[in-house]
Amino acid sequence: MKKYDKLVKNAAGRVVPSEINGEQHIPFQGVGKYIPDGRKYAPRISSCANYPADGNKVIPGLKEALIKAGLKDGMTISTHHHFRNGDLIAKQIFDIAAELGMKNLRWYPSAAFPCHEPLIKYLEDGTINRIEGSMNGILGKFCSEGRMQGLGVLRSHGGRYQSVQDGEVRIDISVIAAPTADPFGNANGVDGPAACGLLGFALADSQYADKVIVVTDNLVPFPCIPWQIHGNYVDYVVEVDQVGLPEKIISGTTKITKSPDRLLIAELTAKFCDAAGIVKDGFSYQAGAGGTALSIGVYFSKLLKERGWKARFIRAGSNQYPVEMLEEGLVDYILDGQTFDLEGVRSMRENSNHVNTSPFTSYNYHGKGNFAGMVDVVILGATEVDVNFNANVVTHSDGYLLHGIGGWQNCLFSKCTIMPIPLFRDRIPVIRDEVTTLCGPGELIDVIVTERGIAINPLRKDLIDKVKNSDLPIKTIEELKDEAERICGKPAKPELADDIVAVIKWVDGTVLDSVRRVISEQ
Amino acid sequence: MKKYDKLVKNAAGRVVPSEINGEQHIPFQGVGKYIPDGRKYAPRISSCANYPADGNKVIPGLKEALIKAGLKDGMTISTHHHFRNGDLIAKQIFDIAAELGMKNLRWYPSAAFPCHEPLIKYLEDGTINRIEGSMNGILGKFCSEGRMQGLGVLRSHGGRYQSVQDGEVRIDISVIAAPTADPFGNANGVDGPAACGLLGFALADSQYADKVIVVTDNLVPFPCIPWQIHGNYVDYVVEVDQVGLPEKIISGTTKITKSPDRLLIAELTAKFCDAAGIVKDGFSYQAGAGGTALSIGVYFSKLLKERGWKARFIRAGSNQYPVEMLEEGLVDYILDGQTFDLEGVRSMRENSNHVNTSPFTSYNYHGKGNFAGMVDVVILGATEVDVNFNANVVTHSDGYLLHGIGGWQNCLFSKCTIMPIPLFRDRIPVIRDEVTTLCGPGELIDVIVTERGIAINPLRKDLIDKVKNSDLPIKTIEELKDEAERICGKPAKPELADDIVAVIKWVDGTVLDSVRRVISEQ
Repeated sequence: MKKYDKLVKNAAGRVVPSEINGEQHIPFQGVGKYIPDGRKYAPRISSCANYPADGNKVIPGLKEALIKAGLKDGMTISTHHHFRNGDLIAKQIFDIAAELGMKNLRWYPSAAFPCHEPLIKYLEDGTINRIEGSMNGILGKFCSEGRMQGLGVLRSHGGRYQSVQDGEVRIDISVIAAPTADPFGNANGVDGPAACGLLGFALADSQYADKVIVVTDNLVPFPCIPWQIHGNYVDYVVEVDQVGLPEKIISGTTKITKSPDRLLIAELTAKFCDAAGIVKDGFSYQAGAGGTALSIGVYFSKLLKERGWKARFIRAGSNQYPVEMLEEGLVDYILDGQTFDLEGVRSMRENSNHVNTSPFTSYNYHGKGNFAGMVDVVILGATEVDVNFNANVVTHSDGYLLHGIGGWQNCLFSKCTIMPIPLFRDRIPVIRDEVTTLCGPGELIDVIVTERGIAINPLRKDLIDKVKNSDLPIKTIEELKDEAERICGKPAKPELADDIVAVIKWVDGTVLDSVRRVISEQ
Repeated sequence: MKKYDKLVKNAAGRVVPSEINGEQHIPFQGVGKYIPDGRKYAPRISSCANYPADGNKVIPGLKEALIKAGLKDGMTISTHHHFRNGDLIAKQIFDIAAELGMKNLRWYPSAAFPCHEPLIKYLEDGTINRIEGSMNGILGKFCSEGRMQGLGVLRSHGGRYQSVQDGEVRIDISVIAAPTADPFGNANGVDGPAACGLLGFALADSQYADKVIVVTDNLVPFPCIPWQIHGNYVDYVVEVDQVGLPEKIISGTTKITKSPDRLLIAELTAKFCDAAGIVKDGFSYQAGAGGTALSIGVYFSKLLKERGWKARFIRAGSNQYPVEMLEEGLVDYILDGQTFDLEGVRSMRENSNHVNTSPFTSYNYHGKGNFAGMVDVVILGATEVDVNFNANVVTHSDGYLLHGIGGWQNCLFSKCTIMPIPLFRDRIPVIRDEVTTLCGPGELIDVIVTERGIAINPLRKDLIDKVKNSDLPIKTIEELKDEAERICGKPAKPELADDIVAVIKWVDGTVLDSVRRVISEQ
């Protein structure tokens, strides 16, 4: 099987393969341009006659479960990143697979983290052919250097749901690590010693995978309530001593930034939102978990308090900051896709207005709408932005693939997408002539906020009008780029090989860009 | 199109058509014997590009919505009975359909009630070809007399989910009457002036129908939380003045029985459960909404209190009685499929341990299990039972089809199914040589409790053993039948025509029995 074949230039001008790991894929056709005409994937019809009459699906161990599930060469095995860098299960799965002599598996995690470094040996020995999923850190580096046998495929959270729903990725066995479950397979993330919040990333897998295994260290009598995952989709339940390390779910920082530049960026962002009339009674936003994003949330919170307003909802990645706002009555709901600290977990367990969402409700582009478009303002990071407002979130300017996409692409559909970024990092300018890897088309990115000025996408004449009489430092993106280059010099393009190591999917399943091999210094 | 064709004798010895309304159906093959080998129905893939970017799907009226949804002759239109006899929407739909000159529609309600009598004119003029769904009262009489153009098809709640999931019934347009909704189509039954509890019967329709219309009289800003129905499945939202009459959701009686015979039956049932070791700490049950069933619940409640025990869950149809038990701490959870009074609605809104279930979680036989089998004891009614423990719940002994199946068939899979019935009604014996209509195979029915004795299914040797040293009046079912016939005389078989007016589906989609035309006295 060739890693990739049939290169074409897509609607974004990027050269991408249309044959990937032996399967046909559609090149990016423009935002909202590709309209699917097929039908969703149709899983096999099951029968209660083939499941235990008393509902007890517990079997002795993960190995038995994988064997019963029919583990075979070439299968697609999915896992989830609710424990982020505290996942304990993926390694066990592939240890078992290797022990059983399996080859050419496709690992389909919702994201991979540095804790998955031990899986590199299975990528090297052919147990795992490839990872299709976001690769944070070491696995991304491994892929960047062209060492993965198959081609990496990166999808957003919504794109992952879409690809499973549409039958583009057919999952043979899904293993769901669950902080609490009952013998029938109902499961949740809010209870138990390893509570991590929610299990939304596993929803598509539970609905569409051929076989579903729930692994838990907190087996409770039926019914496990809330049942974020329905046992009616589950084949086997396995008890283990420890299902994950909840203290490692922490994402970003838990402190607001102290860097004067970042504080300035946060303040400018909040002021921009206020001047543009975005902050108002009943508005909604998504900030994020970095120090700058947290600071912006704090500014929003202050504005709401001062004016006696209340936000309708915060779209999260939750942590202590939105939880405080919910508990102080500054917002009606947190719509949470992933808890980023244990305060988020507690709040989701205790507060019915802290709502469990999934990539289906929030991000699936192949639904009858999703709620990403209803968020008034979204604050996102980027590794690079270019003069056409295109942005990159997966590779560094040296070409290394070190970050996942997460829900980033999906969030671009908000009513206003703002990227607060420093003008340069380690003396490397962030605004470029062209991004190394295209993850987000510029037409969806509205505002770039830096410590030396704010650039508004010329397509957003409405926003330009709204802030034109403010005292905000509005500049063109070229002005910002020039300013950075005056200080740091014009950055060199990274030297990359011709061959492709991974592709970036767009939210509709089309191929947006290719990631090229990094010419390693070793 | 012939109403039916190709009669065969099925595994229960009943003669049923294998061609129904022009489509092939499989005759009943025995409990757990038919194993499907196909795939679930695959709905079309949608795209956010075809839905409003701001999520606002509100359009001016139901007529516009039906036209936009592409209403055409011969389509299948579904509605739901969350308002039971207080539904206001079905009539509006078919008034519009008639006005638009539609013909041959299939109406696919989760159940029809006496309030739907106005639809008879559309059954007569051919706007509606047939009802596939439970018919309570007048519509059932209409069908019984052979006046419906197409053949009636009755499915249990679980069977309805199964048939939609499996693609046996393809819904073109589903109209979901929702007490609260947001402009995106997220909807629930717990809030708003017409709050009826939950919307679980509409789940399959939302997931699989080609077009989904949500109708509400309480439109709230996004997000409508809880979102029992996900807007991601919804095409259009319509506001109306009044969506339903919540005071008419009341099912059964709200008072425990005062009839000495029924009180005796209730007491015997509770004592049987106690003697058989079914009532214990952590047990689960489903009672129901009739006066006898309520009384049994009261007995259970007393036993729990006396012994310091707590039930794990009550499977409901909820009303004030289980709600009181939940609030008194006598049970951990109510798993509710349908609220039967406004106390049930309140409790579901306020108490996160009063859980929203759907026919998918509770009853779908073509899932990887469902929770019907996990209920320790289920108390069900019947219009007739025969000496082989077969039971009828849809026709009276005169052959009239006057009742729906509800979740009755699905509940038979509980660990112990008990039918507390009077030995005779209006001097007509309830235990027969053979039931008029077979709804539940005798092998699944464990115990018959009457005011003159208890009959245990000989298949349940375990139960017979457990109560053999009790002072309960255990008899054979033949003894009970003889006793009734000694008092009332041997009942005559109803005089029915040869032609078939409806069929009863089993939980796996196979055809269990036929309902024959009643020779009307007019």
